[in-house]
Amino acid sequence: MIRTALTDLLGVEHPIVGFNRSPAVVTEVSRAGGFGVLAAVSYTAEELDAQLTWIEEQLDGRPYGVDLLVPEKTADAGADREDLVAALRAQLPAEHLAFVDDLLDRYGIPRLPVDPGRDAIAAGMSRRGAEAQLDAVFAHRPALVANALGTAPPHLVERAHDAGMAVAALVGTRRHAERQLAAGVDVLVAQGTEAGGHTGTIATTVLTPEIVGVAGDRPVLAAGGIASGDQMAAALALGAAGVWCGSVWLSSVEDVAPESVKRKFLAAGSGDTVRSPARTGKPARQLRSAYHDAWSAPGAPAPLPMPLQPLLTLQAWSSIDAAADAGNPGATELQSFFVGQVVGAFTELRGAGEITREMARGCERRIAALAGLVR
Amino acid sequence: MIRTALTDLLGVEHPIVGFNRSPAVVTEVSRAGGFGVLAAVSYTAEELDAQLTWIEEQLDGRPYGVDLLVPEKTADAGADREDLVAALRAQLPAEHLAFVDDLLDRYGIPRLPVDPGRDAIAAGMSRRGAEAQLDAVFAHRPALVANALGTAPPHLVERAHDAGMAVAALVGTRRHAERQLAAGVDVLVAQGTEAGGHTGTIATTVLTPEIVGVAGDRPVLAAGGIASGDQMAAALALGAAGVWCGSVWLSSVEDVAPESVKRKFLAAGSGDTVRSPARTGKPARQLRSAYHDAWSAPGAPAPLPMPLQPLLTLQAWSSIDAAADAGNPGATELQSFFVGQVVGAFTELRGAGEITREMARGCERRIAALAGLVR
Repeated sequence: MIRTALTDLLGVEHPIVGFNRSPAVVTEVSRAGGFGVLAAVSYTAEELDAQLTWIEEQLDGRPYGVDLLVPEKTADAGADREDLVAALRAQLPAEHLAFVDDLLDRYGIPRLPVDPGRDAIAAGMSRRGAEAQLDAVFAHRPALVANALGTAPPHLVERAHDAGMAVAALVGTRRHAERQLAAGVDVLVAQGTEAGGHTGTIATTVLTPEIVGVAGDRPVLAAGGIASGDQMAAALALGAAGVWCGSVWLSSVEDVAPESVKRKFLAAGSGDTVRSPARTGKPARQLRSAYHDAWSAPGAPAPLPMPLQPLLTLQAWSSIDAAADAGNPGATELQSFFVGQVVGAFTELRGAGEITREMARGCERRIAALAGLVR
Repeated sequence: MIRTALTDLLGVEHPIVGFNRSPAVVTEVSRAGGFGVLAAVSYTAEELDAQLTWIEEQLDGRPYGVDLLVPEKTADAGADREDLVAALRAQLPAEHLAFVDDLLDRYGIPRLPVDPGRDAIAAGMSRRGAEAQLDAVFAHRPALVANALGTAPPHLVERAHDAGMAVAALVGTRRHAERQLAAGVDVLVAQGTEAGGHTGTIATTVLTPEIVGVAGDRPVLAAGGIASGDQMAAALALGAAGVWCGSVWLSSVEDVAPESVKRKFLAAGSGDTVRSPARTGKPARQLRSAYHDAWSAPGAPAPLPMPLQPLLTLQAWSSIDAAADAGNPGATELQSFFVGQVVGAFTELRGAGEITREMARGCERRIAALAGLVR
């Protein structure tokens, strides 16, 4: 067992946080002695409520967390909540709608019927939209609430602390960290550029000690480039109190990603990702596909700000995923998902609990090996 | 003391390689128990010969190495060696010459007289030009010869092995590593994207274990993001047999960089670098300055291939450095040099020997601390 400020804070066995949108990954990580964190951004407020209920039933008191995306700056409509999707939809330029339509045509993607839930998820990536998710979270008992983008709003920190929950925040620069600390955040997640999802330009090797240097006694987790016990030991060597892993669970059997995208992940190399705003409107690392090449080709429109870009593209992604699962070759070329550079190390699908336990064991083995180098 | 396959191979005390263009950094690192490696690319063949003679006099048998840049693909002229500079100069487009001239004018940089030695250095960054450097190297007794870019030519590996020297190569992808191993290289340096100089896109946390996985029994060094004992311990945790450090010596008193650029380094943050082809013609990480912004502005010409871009700009860099040292504010805005993201951690200038010893001690302290986490 590895004891750090994080295992003390959360009351877990291993300083391994498993961030994923799949409820069964969250429960398997927590059951294996890690700390599962559900990505709320993939759900409407109603779905989130149901998922958290299920997770708590499974975990029977074991701790888990929730990760929200409450962005600081978004293209929010000045409308009330009932009109939010319509007001946002009215902001989508005709050029962008035509570009996405043409892209699907060129790759021969049959369209699924429009799913209002996908629009609601996109709208949730706005400051206003995220408020409904907050209410769903505080109707439950996560041990930790994280904010994935920007400084957590003061009422989030206050509500969480009042409810006895720790607050974490993902940071990509020292300045981010200083603002989060001033906002009262309890745990900083130093997310290196090699990470999947919304990420900055500074690598984990450099960012982690820099954030540790400003965090004082608050635990810092390293994120980005960590999918093995060796990488976990490296993160601890950099001064982290634990690791925040996202990508590795995409190689778990419990992950809800389409089988077709999991196959692409297993085949991908570490150089096959791209940091692009073409999916969410903010730079996020993803598996590079024909989709990103199209958005960066000459003449392509500039991606829209969050949440308009997700609103523009989420329905298209549903169609692409369904077509790829059905073997459509154009869809397979376009298909992508958020993933970090560690995707190059994926060789097989494993259980999320097994991944957790093997990472912890591997970390202990590596620490013992390091000690053996010293004469 | 930390014993690894690298300390065994090179007969050194610490698995720390110090790569730098300053002969006194090389000797101080080797004297402190590390392994100094001279960057030959900064010198003409004649200068290199003189530097290696000086280094060997200082070191009195202690081992050191040389790093060459023998590129695989360059815009070599079809001329013989005496005409190489002239033949290369004839390939510089008028648009590019005018762009550099205008840039210096806009920032008010007085021109130094043209230095033929700078042109010779630029020409040395060609396959033909590098041959003269090879001859200078093999007139001496380095314990290791490294090639910084692309696969080492077979005659380099052969001559080195015949002379009892180990051959190292810097790699940024698994495919690079496989080609280097096939070419008979003895030591692989996995260079992460956070490194200064010519670097790829994959971060050290991901690249190092990937290269270790294909290297078999040949030692792998981690490069990129390593300037402290903690970062060195992280590299060893990733499976490296040691570290190849470049940037950290730019914060040493012995480094020959202009005082003005050292001041910029001390003031810089970890987010202040850029990976750009605007200096050498190949993507290389540097301190970001007005120079890079000018080259990526709309209407700027595309950088030329190596060695034409260095030939185009090396005289300009001499003028910029001299003007910056004299306090010219425009020159200070333009000034830059190769450096990795660790530049954000530089707070003072120290002796290169002290840096080496402190890194080794810090690594041992961190390993002991890691062992203390295991219950």
